[in-house]
Amino acid sequence: MDEIIEILKEFEGIGSKAAKKIFFQIMTSNSKKDKLIEVINKISDNYSVCQICNFYKYKKVCQFCDDSSRDRNLICVVSYITDGQRILESNFKGLVHILNGEINLNKNLQPESLKIKELFARINKEVEILLALNLTFEGEVTANYIANQIKDNTKSVTRIARGIPLGGVLDYIDTETLEDAIKNRKALKK
Amino acid sequence: MDEIIEILKEFEGIGSKAAKKIFFQIMTSNSKKDKLIEVINKISDNYSVCQICNFYKYKKVCQFCDDSSRDRNLICVVSYITDGQRILESNFKGLVHILNGEINLNKNLQPESLKIKELFARINKEVEILLALNLTFEGEVTANYIANQIKDNTKSVTRIARGIPLGGVLDYIDTETLEDAIKNRKALKK
Repeated sequence: MDEIIEILKEFEGIGSKAAKKIFFQIMTSNSKKDKLIEVINKISDNYSVCQICNFYKYKKVCQFCDDSSRDRNLICVVSYITDGQRILESNFKGLVHILNGEINLNKNLQPESLKIKELFARINKEVEILLALNLTFEGEVTANYIANQIKDNTKSVTRIARGIPLGGVLDYIDTETLEDAIKNRKALKK
Repeated sequence: MDEIIEILKEFEGIGSKAAKKIFFQIMTSNSKKDKLIEVINKISDNYSVCQICNFYKYKKVCQFCDDSSRDRNLICVVSYITDGQRILESNFKGLVHILNGEINLNKNLQPESLKIKELFARINKEVEILLALNLTFEGEVTANYIANQIKDNTKSVTRIARGIPLGGVLDYIDTETLEDAIKNRKALKK
């Protein structure tokens, strides 16, 4: 049983407690078990990885690369495929590039471990690169590394804005973010 | 995709974020996917529910009910199968009975929804029932309900002791627990 729990735990997002709970649910409910197997097969039958941007393809169609209405000269760079999904759900009209991680020297994640070379292959003097990496230490390190490498080969490199999130309470926002939000203030339309 | 995420989320222990992460891991790694299917089949091939105590059987053997060295006149009642696993790992030498939940009137979990009737069928005047239910409101309600129903038909009904957990820091323990721990103090062996 420990061996089975260990295999379930190899999945990011499943901890020890969750692995045990999942184990017992599969054991006690045949219908849950069958549904799970069905879903796994559905995923591997219908979804694959896009070889251009590393986002997913559904029935061989990438909702970014295969959408001709999207601006091909604007590429939004994100760390994870889940971030790409967030971008897809937003009103962003360009393409994406998924890095599959962030540079983290403590965990021996070097630039070569990420899909950075593949990003470089996609850029040219017409392209704007929008770095939508997390505003964490690792995200900043990765953004700075990429910006430095590509600044001469692109039209421009931009970074998503720091500011107060929607519904954010000023009193709970850190000073740096608040200062950035003030500096980047926008005129309201009259 | 939302439909697939919803099915994954039906598993207790898997939330929205985890479901998405699992989805993308199944999609991007064929080896992880194959391992997961193998594990699911291993669970349903080798494990089943014990019809006596509701714990699991591995290759048709319940480590409680089918272990003749265990004291058949001491039954430890717990809420969940995961709690039963904790009891198995302890040095407890009696049997268990899994209720599959706790009474919770807000969630419409009545005594009839639990394996309480099955517990009643297992008791007699020789048996001690140890109620090892959680020390939460729902656990206490369930323990009280069972104790009231069975007290005349058993040798005795006991409740696990409240006290300071191993490694517990006195300063952080609530007063009620501390008072119980003092009241239930034990003489050290000389």
